[in-house]
Amino acid sequence: MYSFRNDYSEGAHPKVLQALTDTNLEQTVGYGTDPRCEAVRVLIRRLCQAPDADIHFLVGGTQTNLLAIASLLRPHEAVIAAHTGHVNVHETGSIEATGHKVCTAFSPDGKLTPELVESVVSGHGGEHMVLPRLVYISDTTEIGTIYTKAELQALRACCDKHGLFLFLDGARLGCALTAPGNDLTLPDLAVLTDAFYIGGTKNGLLFGEALVMNTPNPYFRWHMKQRGAMLAKGRLLGVQFQALLEDGLYFDIARHANEMALRLRDGVTALGYPFPVPSPSNQQFPVLPNRVVDALREKGYEFETDHAVDVDHTCVRFVTSWATPESAVDTFLKDLADCQ
Amino acid sequence: MYSFRNDYSEGAHPKVLQALTDTNLEQTVGYGTDPRCEAVRVLIRRLCQAPDADIHFLVGGTQTNLLAIASLLRPHEAVIAAHTGHVNVHETGSIEATGHKVCTAFSPDGKLTPELVESVVSGHGGEHMVLPRLVYISDTTEIGTIYTKAELQALRACCDKHGLFLFLDGARLGCALTAPGNDLTLPDLAVLTDAFYIGGTKNGLLFGEALVMNTPNPYFRWHMKQRGAMLAKGRLLGVQFQALLEDGLYFDIARHANEMALRLRDGVTALGYPFPVPSPSNQQFPVLPNRVVDALREKGYEFETDHAVDVDHTCVRFVTSWATPESAVDTFLKDLADCQ
Amino acid sequence: MYSFRNDYSEGAHPKVLQALTDTNLEQTVGYGTDPRCEAVRVLIRRLCQAPDADIHFLVGGTQTNLLAIASLLRPHEAVIAAHTGHVNVHETGSIEATGHKVCTAFSPDGKLTPELVESVVSGHGGEHMVLPRLVYISDTTEIGTIYTKAELQALRACCDKHGLFLFLDGARLGCALTAPGNDLTLPDLAVLTDAFYIGGTKNGLLFGEALVMNTPNPYFRWHMKQRGAMLAKGRLLGVQFQALLEDGLYFDIARHANEMALRLRDGVTALGYPFPVPSPSNQQFPVLPNRVVDALREKGYEFETDHAVDVDHTCVRFVTSWATPESAVDTFLKDLADCQ
Amino acid sequence: MYSFRNDYSEGAHPKVLQALTDTNLEQTVGYGTDPRCEAVRVLIRRLCQAPDADIHFLVGGTQTNLLAIASLLRPHEAVIAAHTGHVNVHETGSIEATGHKVCTAFSPDGKLTPELVESVVSGHGGEHMVLPRLVYISDTTEIGTIYTKAELQALRACCDKHGLFLFLDGARLGCALTAPGNDLTLPDLAVLTDAFYIGGTKNGLLFGEALVMNTPNPYFRWHMKQRGAMLAKGRLLGVQFQALLEDGLYFDIARHANEMALRLRDGVTALGYPFPVPSPSNQQFPVLPNRVVDALREKGYEFETDHAVDVDHTCVRFVTSWATPESAVDTFLKDLADCQ
Repeated sequence: MYSFRNDYSEGAHPKVLQALTDTNLEQTVGYGTDPRCEAVRVLIRRLCQAPDADIHFLVGGTQTNLLAIASLLRPHEAVIAAHTGHVNVHETGSIEATGHKVCTAFSPDGKLTPELVESVVSGHGGEHMVLPRLVYISDTTEIGTIYTKAELQALRACCDKHGLFLFLDGARLGCALTAPGNDLTLPDLAVLTDAFYIGGTKNGLLFGEALVMNTPNPYFRWHMKQRGAMLAKGRLLGVQFQALLEDGLYFDIARHANEMALRLRDGVTALGYPFPVPSPSNQQFPVLPNRVVDALREKGYEFETDHAVDVDHTCVRFVTSWATPESAVDTFLKDLADCQ
Repeated sequence: MYSFRNDYSEGAHPKVLQALTDTNLEQTVGYGTDPRCEAVRVLIRRLCQAPDADIHFLVGGTQTNLLAIASLLRPHEAVIAAHTGHVNVHETGSIEATGHKVCTAFSPDGKLTPELVESVVSGHGGEHMVLPRLVYISDTTEIGTIYTKAELQALRACCDKHGLFLFLDGARLGCALTAPGNDLTLPDLAVLTDAFYIGGTKNGLLFGEALVMNTPNPYFRWHMKQRGAMLAKGRLLGVQFQALLEDGLYFDIARHANEMALRLRDGVTALGYPFPVPSPSNQQFPVLPNRVVDALREKGYEFETDHAVDVDHTCVRFVTSWATPESAVDTFLKDLADCQ
Repeated sequence: MYSFRNDYSEGAHPKVLQALTDTNLEQTVGYGTDPRCEAVRVLIRRLCQAPDADIHFLVGGTQTNLLAIASLLRPHEAVIAAHTGHVNVHETGSIEATGHKVCTAFSPDGKLTPELVESVVSGHGGEHMVLPRLVYISDTTEIGTIYTKAELQALRACCDKHGLFLFLDGARLGCALTAPGNDLTLPDLAVLTDAFYIGGTKNGLLFGEALVMNTPNPYFRWHMKQRGAMLAKGRLLGVQFQALLEDGLYFDIARHANEMALRLRDGVTALGYPFPVPSPSNQQFPVLPNRVVDALREKGYEFETDHAVDVDHTCVRFVTSWATPESAVDTFLKDLADCQ
Repeated sequence: MYSFRNDYSEGAHPKVLQALTDTNLEQTVGYGTDPRCEAVRVLIRRLCQAPDADIHFLVGGTQTNLLAIASLLRPHEAVIAAHTGHVNVHETGSIEATGHKVCTAFSPDGKLTPELVESVVSGHGGEHMVLPRLVYISDTTEIGTIYTKAELQALRACCDKHGLFLFLDGARLGCALTAPGNDLTLPDLAVLTDAFYIGGTKNGLLFGEALVMNTPNPYFRWHMKQRGAMLAKGRLLGVQFQALLEDGLYFDIARHANEMALRLRDGVTALGYPFPVPSPSNQQFPVLPNRVVDALREKGYEFETDHAVDVDHTCVRFVTSWATPESAVDTFLKDLADCQ
């Protein structure tokens, strides 16, 4: 038995926890203005080759999404997202709660294209409709797919053409940037997006997202405080991200998560189960017979149901993380074989 | 040199950090629905003798304040607060950002009384004005004072008379409940308020506030998620609060903070400096000559300026915490004496 | 030449204007609390056979929609609308600006059915998603179609089953209730909806909508004032609605608008142009060759483009009103024939 | 008997009503984009000597205030107002409902000064507090006082120094600009404020305010629509303002209102009743013995109570308008004398 339910089912990577322990009784000023946060800001700017980027540390993904988006938009402006976009479906209307409409485009693979963006833009015009102003994408997407550099460049060009901000939700950015087929880098993201974040909660931290703001947004800290998103002991975010980023641990453990996911995918495929949307990253969505789903759950495996395919089959989601041991995958595959 | 700037200048009590380390690789479901959070909810209900209370764990104080308040109010309803109230002054308009006005009453000691509440209520009426609906107080207050049981009972009666919710900001509740002169208990708060919180960030945790909701608020978790306030690894909050609450550590360390503050107060008083508003808790506000203030800062002491008293004198704030060693206070007093 | 652009292209029915003139110098209290507004409230309750309904007078449709909806919902609750719903498309995100998501269902004829409503409801659940809570429909719909009593009863049953409010946008209610095929009455609407409004702006008034609230909403006037929707000289709304409703003028002139629309439809049909979605009311949507569209505009006719059908054809909209003379329709049809 | 309750107790000036009647069946496009609105925009720009000003027509004062303010501010920014400011007291938290805090300064005469503005500005700083960004004043103020040109210039200089917008609520602007002691003109206001409005509802119109925006605000019409503030038959506002402004009627009738108020004031003064705050405009606030107040009401006079002065005396408000006949004032004074 093992939980493949999510990539935040466990705590932090031991190195991160050790860093928190080592610095526990250092006295620092609060709210992310301490030397450790400053040091990681320098580090992130260097990793992104973005000396002018503003770096803000936040606690979670929904918080980061709503702050980045609401701080960039005026009241009449709207978001463009894939219909599966996390902000559209799974954040309890957090964007609308800040006053902004989310306009959606149907996208089977969870990715936006210039054509999809333009289909929304061209359907709007004049003061009786909202003004689409920001494109929300995620990498990896909610269904595990990733953007290539060419795709992101095309989106950037589309955004420039239509005066749109481009915001990339990087809750699973580590897995995106280490997935087979990826050719994007942090410096690419700093050039191609107006803002993106390096997700820590789902890749080795207790909690934390590092927002990289590539467009001027001088009062962002006012927004953070106003939304209750400024951590008193802000240092905790700096310490954690330093442990993760200073020597590449972030990418190493994300690569591991992907490897475990692909090992799982290959094993499931070998047993004859299909994956309708191929994913190269740490979320895998096979279609299983319902009786197999039930049998796995009886064995104690935890995972989420994505959607019913037909009366006998369900598309489920398996998520691996930096903490998933190879043995857990292998045992699972054996148990899956037994369920057939 | 020592920082008396705030009570969140350091990390967590070692026992709390140990608990996080011990449970780090437990796999649990997210968002505060895990067994550890559930166990602490049971514990808190028991400590409060409030079997029907809803317990929610949040990351920080501003977040908790805005969520508790906004989730209880309808759009036309307003908050009553002391003019010094944290939600009125130091949260960047977080309540207004949820759509609600904060109506203030001038209170030299930071506390609200039935008379002050009624002065606001009686000044409102009819649909051209907001409807005051919730009284916001804090214990300890922003200037270190505390409520007695009789005072809180009187406020409760006033709220009942006027159909008002009573919400108590407990960011420094530990210090309030262990201060000399306090006669309030957790069970009292559960009876006398509609909601209050047990502040952890300022008393031993890395972060965390435990909101005790004594009035029905069935969709509070929807509000949490919508405002970006639902921690993915919610377990972290349960684990920390368990370490703090299971054997009374919360009160022990708060008492220590108060003792250090009163030691500091007595020493400063002995040197002839006045404290215009007496505080029995871990924030102390003496008036010092500006040259003494400067001299202390040159020695490396950190603390905040509260306000200028006249051209030569400043009211400053010294804050102690669970982590303040007696030696730090004694050294400070010696250094202060040297500054005279 | 004539403008078929909209049903608010002209002023008020002469009887309405006369009533405003006759009462112009009467001194009354403001904000809709005057005797004339009160008299019309009594009249509307009688017409609706709804002695307990609350009647509120508002200036325009978007204002009425956003107030009715926002006053009924809690922050986490959402609206269900057809994808063509006016609140979803043509009100500049007014609902989202009050904090609420609009969830849409695709509906070719602009109407919602229990099946469509349930497709949205069943796709939501738990605190990570908004809670659908109010069904928004319009009668006539944005594309001229109307609800039957059976259809509305079925929606009501669906709403009851799922705990949903049912709100009916009646901007063109006069035309709906007098269209061929209609079997709904004002008393039906008072029973079957939680709120609906009797649209005046598009049917004989200078401006004005009468909201009939069939569910408790005691602080609605606070909401009105807060949103800037309480007319100082509220009497103007009472006077106008009295002129319109006291002797059935409202229905007489709506019937006229429909008759003009159907006369136009029949004439256009006779010339061989199709109407993909049949409409029995005062909005007609034929598909015309682009060169005919251009020729009509050259002749000075005004009307809106709905959407491009193919490179050579456009679906356009013709709207008639209480003020449309039969001769304008006949001349138009002659001119259209000339354009062939 | 007569109602001195408010300056919107009656309808429109007969010339305005005639203009509405004369143009009633003209077909025009909606939403304020018609030729009549355009013509009045040209006229207003000429009257203000402000060729670049944007002119927007709105229905009422609260609507205009909230739109002008919310469209200029970012979420963390706040308003500075006198404690008596209409937006602070009598608009049901409409500004807060758009997310912005109203910071107040105590002002006995209802006016703001640079000193008062700076007392608020200097009390704010850093991301834990809102950022004051817009100064709200009204002319005449809520208590009838007016600004001089020197006072407004000083406020403008203060606003420039601190990066603040200056917004002037002109609900009673006609009476301000025609009051004894006034030396301000429309061109002055166009130079000295970022936005102001020419109030029509309280000076001769059925309804309507003409907002003059002197600072770029390109998406204001989006805001209007989103808040439900865009009148479908926008032409009604253009027609009314044209009748009022084309030949100076606006100022003539405002001057009349003032004259009636001063006649009333002089008569009341002659009877020995004091006016604690002198007002040169159409609102007068004498202090009367309660038995006189009661006696006047028994005679059928209507007016509002401002506040209780002591157990025996009340400060009341008498408001005159363009429609107040001299005879009504004289009869009132005679009746008042009888009440002594």
